[in-house]
Amino acid sequence: MPQIKVGLIGFGTVGAGMVEALSTNRRLIEDRVGAGIVLKRIADLDIDSDRGVEVDPEVLTTDAMEVVNDPEIDIIVELMGGCDQAMDYILAAMERGKQVVTANKALIAQHGRLLFETAERYGVEVAFEASVAGGIPIIKALREGLAANRIKAILAILNGTSNYILTRMTREGVSFDEALSMAKSCGYAEADPTLDIDGSDAAHKLTILVSLAFGYPCRYEDVYREGIDTVSPEDIRFAGELGYCLKLLAVAREVDGHIEARVHPAFVPLDHILANVNEAYNAVYVEGDFVGPTLFYGLGAGRRPAGSAVVSDLMDIARNQIKGITRRVSPLSFARPPARELSLKPMDQLVTGYYLRFSALDKPGVLSKISGILGAHNISIASVIQKGRGGHGSVPVVMLTYEAMERDVRKSLELVDKLDVVTERTVLFRVERETDS
Amino acid sequence: MPQIKVGLIGFGTVGAGMVEALSTNRRLIEDRVGAGIVLKRIADLDIDSDRGVEVDPEVLTTDAMEVVNDPEIDIIVELMGGCDQAMDYILAAMERGKQVVTANKALIAQHGRLLFETAERYGVEVAFEASVAGGIPIIKALREGLAANRIKAILAILNGTSNYILTRMTREGVSFDEALSMAKSCGYAEADPTLDIDGSDAAHKLTILVSLAFGYPCRYEDVYREGIDTVSPEDIRFAGELGYCLKLLAVAREVDGHIEARVHPAFVPLDHILANVNEAYNAVYVEGDFVGPTLFYGLGAGRRPAGSAVVSDLMDIARNQIKGITRRVSPLSFARPPARELSLKPMDQLVTGYYLRFSALDKPGVLSKISGILGAHNISIASVIQKGRGGHGSVPVVMLTYEAMERDVRKSLELVDKLDVVTERTVLFRVERETDS
Repeated sequence: MPQIKVGLIGFGTVGAGMVEALSTNRRLIEDRVGAGIVLKRIADLDIDSDRGVEVDPEVLTTDAMEVVNDPEIDIIVELMGGCDQAMDYILAAMERGKQVVTANKALIAQHGRLLFETAERYGVEVAFEASVAGGIPIIKALREGLAANRIKAILAILNGTSNYILTRMTREGVSFDEALSMAKSCGYAEADPTLDIDGSDAAHKLTILVSLAFGYPCRYEDVYREGIDTVSPEDIRFAGELGYCLKLLAVAREVDGHIEARVHPAFVPLDHILANVNEAYNAVYVEGDFVGPTLFYGLGAGRRPAGSAVVSDLMDIARNQIKGITRRVSPLSFARPPARELSLKPMDQLVTGYYLRFSALDKPGVLSKISGILGAHNISIASVIQKGRGGHGSVPVVMLTYEAMERDVRKSLELVDKLDVVTERTVLFRVERETDS
Repeated sequence: MPQIKVGLIGFGTVGAGMVEALSTNRRLIEDRVGAGIVLKRIADLDIDSDRGVEVDPEVLTTDAMEVVNDPEIDIIVELMGGCDQAMDYILAAMERGKQVVTANKALIAQHGRLLFETAERYGVEVAFEASVAGGIPIIKALREGLAANRIKAILAILNGTSNYILTRMTREGVSFDEALSMAKSCGYAEADPTLDIDGSDAAHKLTILVSLAFGYPCRYEDVYREGIDTVSPEDIRFAGELGYCLKLLAVAREVDGHIEARVHPAFVPLDHILANVNEAYNAVYVEGDFVGPTLFYGLGAGRRPAGSAVVSDLMDIARNQIKGITRRVSPLSFARPPARELSLKPMDQLVTGYYLRFSALDKPGVLSKISGILGAHNISIASVIQKGRGGHGSVPVVMLTYEAMERDVRKSLELVDKLDVVTERTVLFRVERETDS
């Protein structure tokens, strides 16, 4: 039986998951692939800590270049994270004709072009299923399983930490800070959770999905992002009253060649399948022109789910290698740039529904002033919740709008927030309604 | 640019969907694959009806063998349905070295062995993504995206007609017959809906999933099946009171080498992601030992979703053909029979929770008689609903059991149903609790 030899750079959480999957399911992998996948070398600066998996000490090295230079190694798996050094090792591996598997979403989102061009030049694969949505095989689905479709929209929950926090805020009514503490104590949030809660992590992943789905070379900087730290229990309660929940959504949509790419908290109708994605789960809702709406759901992070994705990538490459081929599918799904002209839609031209929460004095005429400004900017109101407190303080006035243009909404809010009856900055969340298919 | 030539046998609903996808997304397919996929011949007994897609009349023929014998055709797509004749054409195509795509679930479930052995002998592919769950790329997920996992369980909603009927019964409280009429008038049920509502259709699909997931040569006859025609609005109401919904589930599970394969109505907890799969949607919940729980959701039938699956299969084969290979992945995912010994678990050894609805006289001592019999057979009761009517008629007594063995439950019910206080045959549904991952 042929043996495919693998070198690992970065023996952290995901690395340990990969090693464990290769070892636990060794026979199963051989049965499925018809070849063995053998871990020959592991490089990490720390080769002493116990990762809870058995490893022959002889395979360990602190020198990543030893792995890259090993002529017997067919596939390099980069799981060290970070950009500069990881890229150096990957490029060096490609130059030596090695196939590459990586889980490094930041690297792909920020330096994908160099990565994919180099892979093409040397005729090697670069596989990255673990970089988006952990164990969910969404990259394979976009590249292959749904390949017949023009993708119309992607709505995704791509950050498990944020989803866990929003779930706690929704179910237990706690504040963002309390929910964040809970996430930390359960191991769902790191000591510095910035990249998770400010939308950067989800934006990295969305950058990759946009490139795959539309064949558009999306840059990380192109993705609009807002985090969840502005979400209050009050807005979550109002969402519920209106028949919605609040999710950190990564949205990509193509309409007539214009692509939206944005990450922000959004209202999702309670009867939408995405509204049922809770706790630390991820899900990617993909709408194709033929397949219609689909959902891919699972754990988006963690040692074992990420290990599943990395080893499935290894098996994919091994199946190619047995047949003597590489690059059966181009990394970003398109064998050549798409024929159609595509461009990014500027955020101020976004057309969607809006949830607006005004803080206003509990006085007659307030609603008419606010709705007058909105009306003058072509914004129609779908529903209003106003609950007077009967006192002199300020009260929330909540509105859901019909579809409106972001630019008009922003302009209106500037004017509204200057009204003397308005006491605080208006809170805005976008509303993702059911798509029409 | 290379051109891959395709011949279609069977120009019905799915065939029209395939033709439409190939034509609508021609450029996109070329961009993704780097080759054109050209429909060269279509065979159908009816070559006159308008299918709503443009087809050059010259490609049409009433003689399927003309398509099979065309030396320029690389891939034969069999969408005629039925078993005997479809098999003859497929075998003839394979003998001529042609790759095969089919959506024929009955053929694969009942004659898969001959089909796959012949494909192996002639070194050709046989792809069948459209045969299970329509546009949802679940076969690719099991063969490739989740390949690193030992599959622990599959819980699936595989029949859209049944799911539509159960959704109507749940949401509108109508009877099975009324819901079936609604399904017919909406086009979700055929004039003879037997195969959909008696579980046969789902059992065909489950046969295929079991073979893929476990490498076990499951036969259609091996799959236990019950339909939904015994489901009453009363049981659906009780399910809701107990925190469950009723779904026609296809369940496959492997525990210590013993495989369960069964299709029947089942109680699903309302907080399970499958409980949110409604209307005519399908979904496959797959639990892998590394990936954990995943869900694949979408439309399981219809011209366009099935067209998506067939054309994605064509693109998959085209991508192989460009590289000069076939059979990169074996049709049933395993390159060789699995090393482990696997056997089917007899249904009477199933261990699960049960919902039991007894019809009993509203008299003192009834509950004690029934629970006495259950207790004597090692069946523990988790909850009871008993609502006396205060009259002399019979009343429902509802129980949810803890995990019990099917054999013991069957034996108890035989005894219970003989009690003079029990007025009707006891209604039984199995309960699928949350899996433990």
